[in-house]
Parts: sequence; C-alpha cells; structure tokens
Amino acid sequence: MNAEQIKFSNKTVDVVFDGSFDELDTWAPAASIIVVTDENVFNAQPHRFKSHKTILVPAGESHKQQQTVDTIIAELLAMQADKQSVLVGVGGGVVTDMTGYAASIYKRGIRLIQVPTSLLAMVDAAVGGKNGVDVGPYKNMVGTIYQPDVLLYDYSFLETLPAVEWVNGFAEIIKHACIKDAAMFAFLQQKTPTDFIRDRSLIASLVEQNVKIKLSVVLSDEFETGDRKLLNFGHTIGHAIENSYDLSHGFAVSIGMAEALRISEAINGFQSADRLSVLQLLEQYGLPTHINYDPEKIWELLVLDKKRNAAGMGYILLDAIGKGKVSTIPLPQLNDLLNQ
Amino acid sequence: MNAEQIKFSNKTVDVVFDGSFDELDTWAPAASIIVVTDENVFNAQPHRFKSHKTILVPAGESHKQQQTVDTIIAELLAMQADKQSVLVGVGGGVVTDMTGYAASIYKRGIRLIQVPTSLLAMVDAAVGGKNGVDVGPYKNMVGTIYQPDVLLYDYSFLETLPAVEWVNGFAEIIKHACIKDAAMFAFLQQKTPTDFIRDRSLIASLVEQNVKIKLSVVLSDEFETGDRKLLNFGHTIGHAIENSYDLSHGFAVSIGMAEALRISEAINGFQSADRLSVLQLLEQYGLPTHINYDPEKIWELLVLDKKRNAAGMGYILLDAIGKGKVSTIPLPQLNDLLNQ
Repeated sequence: MNAEQIKFSNKTVDVVFDGSFDELDTWAPAASIIVVTDENVFNAQPHRFKSHKTILVPAGESHKQQQTVDTIIAELLAMQADKQSVLVGVGGGVVTDMTGYAASIYKRGIRLIQVPTSLLAMVDAAVGGKNGVDVGPYKNMVGTIYQPDVLLYDYSFLETLPAVEWVNGFAEIIKHACIKDAAMFAFLQQKTPTDFIRDRSLIASLVEQNVKIKLSVVLSDEFETGDRKLLNFGHTIGHAIENSYDLSHGFAVSIGMAEALRISEAINGFQSADRLSVLQLLEQYGLPTHINYDPEKIWELLVLDKKRNAAGMGYILLDAIGKGKVSTIPLPQLNDLLNQ
Repeated sequence: MNAEQIKFSNKTVDVVFDGSFDELDTWAPAASIIVVTDENVFNAQPHRFKSHKTILVPAGESHKQQQTVDTIIAELLAMQADKQSVLVGVGGGVVTDMTGYAASIYKRGIRLIQVPTSLLAMVDAAVGGKNGVDVGPYKNMVGTIYQPDVLLYDYSFLETLPAVEWVNGFAEIIKHACIKDAAMFAFLQQKTPTDFIRDRSLIASLVEQNVKIKLSVVLSDEFETGDRKLLNFGHTIGHAIENSYDLSHGFAVSIGMAEALRISEAINGFQSADRLSVLQLLEQYGLPTHINYDPEKIWELLVLDKKRNAAGMGYILLDAIGKGKVSTIPLPQLNDLLNQ
C-alpha cells in the first residue's frame, strides 16, 4: 500500500495514494459511513454510491454557502448520525470544503474521510484541513481548519472528469511549482495536459508530488502564521474575481497569478523573462492570464479579504520561479499597482 | 491581579477573576474590539457599551440558532472585521455560546474574549471552550470547541442579574458539588441564595472555586473522551426537556439531576438518604426537581443526544455526593427506567 501517516497537532491523517472508494469500509465501519457528494459526481458514476447512505448536494460554487451546510446538518439529524458517524466527502473542492466544515461543527466534530474526485481537490482543496463556505460573493469567509482522519485517492474518478476541470487543477499545480519547486516547473514545461489525461501513472505521480509539497508547507505552519501563506499565491485577486465574474477557481487563480507576477516584477525584482515563462506555461495548460475587470468592484471585495491586516494586504510574490515570498503591500500602494 | 494562565493544546487562556469590562482595552487594542451582547444585557447597563462597536442579538435560548450566528457574521463583514479583530461575548450562556462559535468560524477563527454576565455563564457556559447553537429543538447540535484568549470576570454585571438567573446558576454549582466536591456541597447546605446575592466577595469566591473545578475537569480531557463527560450530569434529560418545555437551562438541569439521582439509586447503589439531601439542596436554592413530561416526546429527542453511541446512552451517575461516574445505559434499559 502506498500510504503515509501525517501527524498534525490534534490528529493523525492517513493519506492513501492508491485507495479505492469501493473499499471504503477498510477505513471505517460500513454502518457508520455517511457520504456527501454532489449531483455531478453522483450522476457520473452512480453505481459507486449504492452501498452507502448518501447526502446529495447541488453542484457548483454558487451553492457553497451556509444554507447548503444547514441542509447537510438537517439530513445528519434525520439519519440520527452520532459522534461515531464518519462523514465522507466525495467530490471536488466545493464538496470537500462543505463536508469538512459540516464534520467539524456537527455535534462539535465527527470523523471525516475526504475522497477528492477532481484534480484540483486532489492536489489542493482536500489537502491541509482548511474548509468552509462563501458568504454571498465573499470567498471562504466562514469555516474551520479540521484535518480528515483519512485522505483517500481513487484515480478512477478522473475517468469522468470534464476537460475544464483538468485545466482547473493544473492552475494549483503550476502554483505549487512557482512557489516551491523549479524542477517540477521545468518538468511541466515538457508536458501537455493530454499527456497526463492519457497516462494514469503519470498523473498519479504528479498528484502525489503536489500533495507532498502542500503537506510539507501546511505541516510547517498548520494554523497559517507564516509559510502556509505562500499557498495563497494568485489567490488575492483570484478570490476577488472568482465569484464576481463567475470564473472557475483555477481560471481565477491563474489570472491572479498573472497579476501577482506583474507586481513581483514591479516591486520585487522578479525577472521579466521568468514572468513570461510562467505566463507561457499557464497558457500551455489552457489557463487564462487576463480578464478585463472593474477595479472598483474588485477593490470592494479585496478590502474584506482574510489576508488584509492593519499594515496592508498580505500578498504572495515570487523572488524567482520556485521561490515564493510572503509580503505585505500597503493598501494605497496596492490600489496604485492594480490600476496600472 | 487575581488571574491565571491556563494552557490548552492550541492556546493559552488568561482567566481574570477581578477584571473590569470597562478596562477591556487592557486585553486587546481598542480598535480591534467588537462586542456581541443581547438586548437584555445591553438595556440593563447601556452606558457600559458606549466605547465599543457592538453587535446586538435578540435575547433568549430560542434565538440560539444558526440564523442568529449568520447575522453576526454578516455584521462582522459589514464592519470589515479582519483576522486581527477580537470578538468579545458579553452576556449569559446563549451569548457566549454564539459568540464563541462565531469567532471560531469567522475567517476560520479570530481572537475571542468571553465576559460572562450571568452566574450560569460565569461558572459553566463560558468556561472550557464548548460553544454552539441549537438546531430547532435539538440542543447544541452544531458548534466547536474553541478556547477564548481571555476569560474575564466582572462581578458588577451581577448587580442587574434577574433573580431567576441566580437560581439558574446555582443548578450548575450544585452539579459541580455533586460530581466533584463534597465539601462545597456541605458549604452550600449552610447558605441560601440571598447570602450570595448580598455579599460580592462570597459569590466571587464561590465562582472562582467553580471555575477551577470545571477547568480542572476540562484540562484533563479537553476533547471529551473521558472525565469531561462528568459535566453532563443532569444534562441528558435536562437537554431533552429544556426546549420542549421551554424551561430555563438551570431548571431543566435540576430536574435532569433529580432523574439521574433516581437512576443512580436504582442501578448504582447510590444511597437513598443522599438522594434526598441533593433534592433538598436543589429546593433550598429555588430549583425544581420534577416536571410531568411526555416520555415519548422526550425519547424522540434523547435518541438524537450527542451522548448516544452504539452501546447505549452515555449517562452520568453518582457513586456518592462529590463522586460522579461515567456510565453507559443500554437504550431499552434507559427507556424502562424513564417510564418507572
């Protein structure tokens, strides 16, 4: 078995890289399992959900709201779920975020297994314990940090993953390369999305590499007082435009990274040639690098960003490809930079 | 200063036994403070809230629901509260429970100061980090365990505490005596509520003693895997009847303790004379020990209790006065016992 035990402050997480959702009862008593998934994941492979009590939520970021979590809670109560129940999130980031949040608050916390089914959730959303919901257009304003007991990878879910979701996932993979891993950046330059879509072992190895990058960052800083902030690269502008322009998370982050690269060049001595290399890699993986947005509308959302503090906005810049840097930009300067 | 630092797994809590709400800025930068209180507490001493941004919530257990927390979150967003903001819960258990929960989920956790103003919140609800809301009639079905940074006692709030709230608080004090402290039980037998209402130093000393009992139990078992369950004495039937019969928490717990005493005598060898002593003490402090409830209605609520597991219902019994015991009663036996 290709699995690792990762020790967090309050919990040990089993990360199973060659798992099978069909053998979920290896990890929890069958009677205690309650699956949460969305309509898209369920309809893509309905036969896989026959064995378990299943709570279906509507698909899409627009439903990642407290109201949907309230319905999960109501269903758990109706099923008489108790402190021994195990909630299993099966889906993309929206599902794993809401399931993790629901598990952390139901009866003040029950057991949790995450089974990410999208590339983005596999490399990012389901890793590290952050969960939550949006409040209206404001991203992830409410949530907790709550580690799953088991993080289970079953790559057969990728067989029915829509093409646009592959592109989405590569945004976070390129982000990891930019902030932490120049060698992976160079490797990605030599490949195309199709290479990974066609080769199960190639994508499995890339996912595992990315999970390990994210976990190493998270473990060094579980409650985000320092290094974990690096993972926010591209996520400041990204979060602000995501809901207001109805972009997928990967697309929004890709555009956010392009903005952060421009700012890195303007105030952090990041090389222009390297900026162009990153933009080229994003485009190679089908990601957008620009959108015409309304700066005033975006500014209103930015000032409510979790990363804002008295000194300005926490902002992740690059020193070089593979080397991210936690920085703070005073709000007036940031406003100028965004209007250039 | 009469204060202690209590170390929890992730946080150190300053417990300030001789604090003043009017000097709150000793504990947090004034600009970062956002107070949450309810209409009753605010109207009793309105001058005390002039210096701070204040979020008012409606008073009463019926408002301890996710919907009220949603409005707190919306107000925090409207105030542009950030990760450096400090949420301050000023009120009884309903307010401190909702404020603690809101602080734990807003932007995945911001700083928290609890200022309990009722006797019950001082000795119980605000101590130990448990928070949450009810889901319809089901008590505390959603919440987290989240320690405050500061737990501040300002006894001047007791000056405007309604008489019924004094009685409520004594229920939890008698609970602590029953499960952990025979000497305090004997001391309480020699006093009346009026003794404490009239003498600030007497109540201050009693509160401090109770906070220390609760903290010692909680610290030995922060995430309630063992000894902390003792604090649930009287809370099984108590929780079930509280909302369905619109009882105050202390009244419900008092009746719940009377039921637990009866069961302790029936199946745990608890002395009949001791049971009568506890009933007498409850009555001495103005607490009810009986209500005619509908066993079927209560049973429906009991089976959803957080304390239920596969083996039965987690139930706290007494071996003797001052000596509680964690026990599990199979559901059929419990059903019989309740119908006797």
